[in-house]
This record gives sequence, C-alpha cells and structure tokens, in this order.
Amino acid sequence: MNPEHILTLRVRYPEADPMGYLHHSRYLQYFEMGRIELLRSLGHSYAELEQQGVFFVVVKVEVRYRAPARFDDELTLTTKVVKQTHVRIDHAYELRKGSTLLAEATTTIACVDRNGELTQIPQFLQPPESAA
Amino acid sequence: MNPEHILTLRVRYPEADPMGYLHHSRYLQYFEMGRIELLRSLGHSYAELEQQGVFFVVVKVEVRYRAPARFDDELTLTTKVVKQTHVRIDHAYELRKGSTLLAEATTTIACVDRNGELTQIPQFLQPPESAA
Amino acid sequence: MNPEHILTLRVRYPEADPMGYLHHSRYLQYFEMGRIELLRSLGHSYAELEQQGVFFVVVKVEVRYRAPARFDDELTLTTKVVKQTHVRIDHAYELRKGSTLLAEATTTIACVDRNGELTQIPQFLQPPESAA
Amino acid sequence: MNPEHILTLRVRYPEADPMGYLHHSRYLQYFEMGRIELLRSLGHSYAELEQQGVFFVVVKVEVRYRAPARFDDELTLTTKVVKQTHVRIDHAYELRKGSTLLAEATTTIACVDRNGELTQIPQFLQPPESAA
Repeated sequence: MNPEHILTLRVRYPEADPMGYLHHSRYLQYFEMGRIELLRSLGHSYAELEQQGVFFVVVKVEVRYRAPARFDDELTLTTKVVKQTHVRIDHAYELRKGSTLLAEATTTIACVDRNGELTQIPQFLQPPESAA
Repeated sequence: MNPEHILTLRVRYPEADPMGYLHHSRYLQYFEMGRIELLRSLGHSYAELEQQGVFFVVVKVEVRYRAPARFDDELTLTTKVVKQTHVRIDHAYELRKGSTLLAEATTTIACVDRNGELTQIPQFLQPPESAA
Repeated sequence: MNPEHILTLRVRYPEADPMGYLHHSRYLQYFEMGRIELLRSLGHSYAELEQQGVFFVVVKVEVRYRAPARFDDELTLTTKVVKQTHVRIDHAYELRKGSTLLAEATTTIACVDRNGELTQIPQFLQPPESAA
Repeated sequence: MNPEHILTLRVRYPEADPMGYLHHSRYLQYFEMGRIELLRSLGHSYAELEQQGVFFVVVKVEVRYRAPARFDDELTLTTKVVKQTHVRIDHAYELRKGSTLLAEATTTIACVDRNGELTQIPQFLQPPESAA
C-alpha cells in the first residue's frame, strides 16, 4: 500500500487573482505542502532533511485544472506516492472543494545533494518493500 | 507561421527559495507573463480583454525542469502558440539562462466569460489563417 | 475590552528566501490572515463582506522585525483591534516563535465600497460600546 | 547628494488580488527591487555580496498607501538612501503611476553575516563622504 495523506487548507487572499480565482501557480505550492505533510506523517521532517544535506527538486509537473477555487474556500488535498526509485519519487494529487474535483496532478521529484547533484534517496526514506 | 515572443526577465529575491533556486511554482507565473507579452506584441492588452469580459483560464500545464535558476539570473523565455481552436490555445515555452535550457513547458488555456463559462475566443484574437 | 485572536501557522517553503528566512513581505500576508481570522472569531466572514460590497484596504503599515523565522517554523500571531472609528480600524500584531518575539506591527485599514471610495464601516461591524 | 534610483515596473497578474488591486504586501517586494537596482547602479551586485557573506536584513518598514495600482499598470519607483551608519541604511521610496503618488515608504536595513549576526557594512559600500 502506498503512503497517502489528506491535507485541509484554506485559500488565502493574496493567493487569489483579479478573476477571484486561486492562481494556477499556487496549486504547485499546495502540492509541495502535501508532499511535506505526507513525509511528516511518515515521521520525517523535510526541514531536517535539508539540514542533513538531503534535498528534493521537482523535475516534472503535470496539472489538469477542472474547476476554480476562490478566496476563503476550504479545500482538501490528497497526496500519494505512486512510484519510487532509488533517486526519484512520483506523487499524484487530487484537490477538492467538498466533493468537487478542482485539479488532478502528478509530479516527479529527484533527490539531490547540497550542490544540486543527483544522489540516492537515503535508505531511511525508502519504503519497507524496497528493502526486500 | 505561429506567433512567438521572447521575454527577458531577472529572478527576484523572494522568487528564490531556501535552496537558492527559483521556486518551481514561479515558472508558471513567468509563462503567464510570456503569454501576456506575446499578446501585447500582437497588439492586444490582456488587461483590456478582461475589462471587455474576455478571460483566459489555464486548464492544463506540463513542465519539465532541466536546470535551476538563482536570484538575479537573467533569463530568456520563448513563448509560442502551437495550436488554436475556437475555444482553446496551446502554448509552448522554453526558459533559458544564456544557452542553458532551464525548463520546457506546454499549457492549454481556455476562453471563459465573466461567469467562468467556456466561450468562443473573439474573432479579433483568431489567427488570420483561421479566417480561411 | 478589545477583540483579540491568536493564530498558529507554519512557514511554507516558498515563503522563505535564499537566506533561509521568511521573507519580510510575507509578514504582511500573515497579519492579513490574523485580521480575517479575528473577524471570523467575531462571527463575520470577510469573503461574504466582499460579496456584500464591503471591502477593507490597508492604508498604513508599520513593522519592526526582531528575529527571523525559517521554513517549517511554527509561529503564533496575536492580532488585536486597538482603535476603531466609523471608517478605520487600527490593529496591532505580535508574531512569536515560542516565547521569542519575531515582529511587532500596526496597521490601519479603511472601509471602501466596490469603487474603492471611502465609506462607513457597517453598523454590524461596529463594536457594542460604539452604540453608546 | 544621496544616491537615488528610478525603476520602472509593470504589475503582474498574480500580484493583484481579488479586489483587482496590487496586494499591499507586494509593495515591499518592489521596494527591495528598488534597493537592489540602486545598488547595481552604484556598481554593486547584491547577489555577489551575498556570495561574499554580506547580507542585509530589513529591520523596520513603514508604508503609507495612497492609491491602488492594478494589473498591467506601469509604475515608477523612486528609491533613495536617506541615512547610512556603519551598520544600517535608511531608504525612502515613492511609488507612482504617472503623476499619481500610490505609496510612500521608509525602511531600515541592517548588515548581517552568514549567521545573521549584526556586522559592519563593508568599506566599499560606505559613501565617499563617510571617509572624511
């Protein structure tokens, strides 16, 4: 079973644009929050990982926007790991307002060191099944 | 021939994150600037379009991040229309620092009215060839 | 007694800059969240006020930054009303990390209508004592 | 005579909020750009200063907002040094749209090292008169 996390958040005023809609760039910031909170739910702090020299960079993003969100809307973001290799993790996201799907997305993140060089994801972040 | 525009911009301090990299969400804001300036180069102001009730919303984004940008880097963004229908426009983007490709992306935007309902792109925004 | 509200929030990754510090512009966004949540705690939704044509604009800000915050820090923001007239409200803020004071600030907001014209704060937003 | 710089910039779409106004927090980002470009006009790159371990942090901000700006507005920002000591620099700002004053502000920035400790502003950044 793949790790999954549900985050509740509320659209902030300056995140909405003159149309009154949550700006499409902001979704990527929400997805990043989803990844960070998913990691925290598994017992890891991304802030501490960075202090240890373990960084993740986004190498690929795909988003399909289905319906707009507005200032003060309460949203739920589901984040799950769909694939993990020794250097990359693929996540999938669904952002909803109530039962309405606002956006679906996938990202690929890669593990890099302080110099931005691709590196192996530390063993303690590998899923149990990968130890087999 | 498809319309194309080259925009030069400089990474702002708060656009870079604790890694020192231009945050991946910011690229979408640059691509939007590319679309707006491409439109301006064709004689249209997106601000005036909105005042007339013509809005474009992003329905799909795909980005591949190749190399990071940092605070104060001067970048060039190439934006071009790759496909246009009566309601949608597909753009492609290449973001470079000097000759280094930092990111490639595509977006699909759709024309909506003040209520967010899908509507036809006004005739004056249709490419000449579509009049044939 | 003046209305007061305490908000807990966590610094997001793209809110921190290349120094690793919460960017000083972000504090103003936190203060706005403080005002909105203070209002909510008093039974009012700022989103609904805007739908009714009641807007508040910031006319004055003063911030003293005492110590930096970093990504993932949990902060507490105390927001209180310090003065209210028929058209303006003054708030004071204290942002803390644990017992450490990070910033102190004051703002003045003014009530405007849809056209941005200064207008009286609606009666239902007037403090009880002002009815005296 | 105090150093002064005039910067022209255009309000970006996601910098404007649901009221259609440039969000009040964004002004601080513009003022920072004013400081950086003023420094560049004097022959110094803030990005290079940071690489050398010279950082400036904002310790105080005061802004008076006079009139709103909107998406796509072209603005001019005047930035000048009004006072400089061995550790701090005070700047004053005027943001205009055409001849209309949108905002007036002052900031105090302090020089810190990589650890955030207050430190002397390097000699090469001291104004000539301070050598007297």
